[in-house]
Amino acid sequence: MYTLEELQIKVKQYFSEENFIKTPRGLYEPIDYTLALGGKRIRPIMLLAATDMFGGNIEESRYAAIAIETFHNFTLLHDDLMDKSPVRRGKPTVYRKWDENTAILSGDAMHILAWHYLLKQKHNNLYHILRTFEKTSLEIHEGQQYDMDFENRNDVTIAEYMNMIRLKTAVLLAAALKIGALYTDATTIDINLLYEFGISLGLAFQLRDDLLDVYGDITTFGKQTGTDIKDNKKTYLMLKALEKADLKTKAQLIQLFSTKPENPNVKITEVTEIYDKLEIRTDVENEISKLHENAIDKLNCINRPQQTKKCLQDLAQKLLEREV
Amino acid sequence: MYTLEELQIKVKQYFSEENFIKTPRGLYEPIDYTLALGGKRIRPIMLLAATDMFGGNIEESRYAAIAIETFHNFTLLHDDLMDKSPVRRGKPTVYRKWDENTAILSGDAMHILAWHYLLKQKHNNLYHILRTFEKTSLEIHEGQQYDMDFENRNDVTIAEYMNMIRLKTAVLLAAALKIGALYTDATTIDINLLYEFGISLGLAFQLRDDLLDVYGDITTFGKQTGTDIKDNKKTYLMLKALEKADLKTKAQLIQLFSTKPENPNVKITEVTEIYDKLEIRTDVENEISKLHENAIDKLNCINRPQQTKKCLQDLAQKLLEREV
Repeated sequence: MYTLEELQIKVKQYFSEENFIKTPRGLYEPIDYTLALGGKRIRPIMLLAATDMFGGNIEESRYAAIAIETFHNFTLLHDDLMDKSPVRRGKPTVYRKWDENTAILSGDAMHILAWHYLLKQKHNNLYHILRTFEKTSLEIHEGQQYDMDFENRNDVTIAEYMNMIRLKTAVLLAAALKIGALYTDATTIDINLLYEFGISLGLAFQLRDDLLDVYGDITTFGKQTGTDIKDNKKTYLMLKALEKADLKTKAQLIQLFSTKPENPNVKITEVTEIYDKLEIRTDVENEISKLHENAIDKLNCINRPQQTKKCLQDLAQKLLEREV
Repeated sequence: MYTLEELQIKVKQYFSEENFIKTPRGLYEPIDYTLALGGKRIRPIMLLAATDMFGGNIEESRYAAIAIETFHNFTLLHDDLMDKSPVRRGKPTVYRKWDENTAILSGDAMHILAWHYLLKQKHNNLYHILRTFEKTSLEIHEGQQYDMDFENRNDVTIAEYMNMIRLKTAVLLAAALKIGALYTDATTIDINLLYEFGISLGLAFQLRDDLLDVYGDITTFGKQTGTDIKDNKKTYLMLKALEKADLKTKAQLIQLFSTKPENPNVKITEVTEIYDKLEIRTDVENEISKLHENAIDKLNCINRPQQTKKCLQDLAQKLLEREV
């Protein structure tokens, strides 16, 4: 069994052994640039961990691991363009470093590259793997659309929000695990349990992200805090606050989330004070714990020796204990 | 054997039987809108014609036909955004009717839909079909990148141009035929001949398009003429003219192609007069005839009875005899 640290090294090695630069360079350089930015590589690590957990050979799923990370980075590339985000992982985003058309076209090529890597090696379960990938890809785009739709709505429920982050974030983590398991002879029951582990973990991961955006320490979180409040994003915190607030506070929140002041600091402070008063942080932390437990329950139900699950347990722990 | 007209009706029927609208509607409505715009549906017709030619059952390749047209329309959707084209097939383009982000996201979803349709039915050759599709998709994006690169270069050769239009236009026609044939037990030799037929036909088709842009009748061509000249596009006509022109005319051409006047009519007239003087139209027509002959030669070499080739012969004829 590989440890989490060993798989992190494996993924790093796999990426360093690929050559993403071909001609025309104008098409491939932004792809290489994006993939070289690094990041935590959570999805390929999860994919390999799933293969390993069921006794498979991770060399058989290495290209699927590259594929899932390439796909994820393609979605980030286009998201950054749509959100007009100037920076990703401390470097200029592709549309800023090059231009909008480059971001569109190189992103599209990157999208195809994901399929290219998935198709690189034949496998008995390849059809099932490809169907899983295709279904997941569409779901992620549906999630992104719901996210955009929610910006113009004032009646988003927490259930709708959870469904949106399931599509936008959780299904890709779950699919990474499922695809990794499909490179082994794991049973359908076990694969479904692993998928559900991924869904719960993904939901918890996104809620943790929502929390860190308000209460995170920029030095450990690595992102500017308060951006969701600044951008009037309807996060779990905001929706929970609307649910718990009295009429006056609710009106105040809605009013605050309809403004985009030049200097957002006062607004961020005011919203955070409301969250504090309503003890939203505790609610989110409880919800995260519940989802984490739920995830671990699913993992425990999988019909494999406990020691094979260590790597995914560690990963879940690490993902959800990012410091607030 | 189906006639060309019968296949046109089949493709129309296949599309009318698909439901492209799902939730969230904001994601799927622009896809449905784009696919409902119609067009000549050349690629799916070619795909079905190839299946039919080798004695296959076109019901087996119907979803591949939908896939190839969906993919083609996805590329048009993103191309229109990159080119800032306001109109496609007489209707506002997606980025105009909705907005840029909708064009990006719905285009991406449409791209996945192409894979969805390819994966809808299992087939013995599916792996080969998917590899062909993936390779072709990347080539098309490389072609698009070369096309963009050429805008900033003044030393593009005719050979480079032919390679660019091979990638940007011809490989998708050729791949449509190849994929259609892969739904049958056609031999590799015959499939390769059919692919080459598609390449020659695709090149001729693009040169005809270049020609029509200058000498076409707007009522039969359906597009505004002179747009390539207006946009300083390096077409076959322009490159051939540069090759044939004396130094003075060459300088004049280069100068004309470095301007973007508010009213382009004088510029269009001047460039057309140079083309006329250099008899470029005859050169292009000769090149198209040569490519057409080349295509028919390949088709003739395929080890199938002559009557099975009628539909593709008719299609080639129709595509290349669009009125000038």
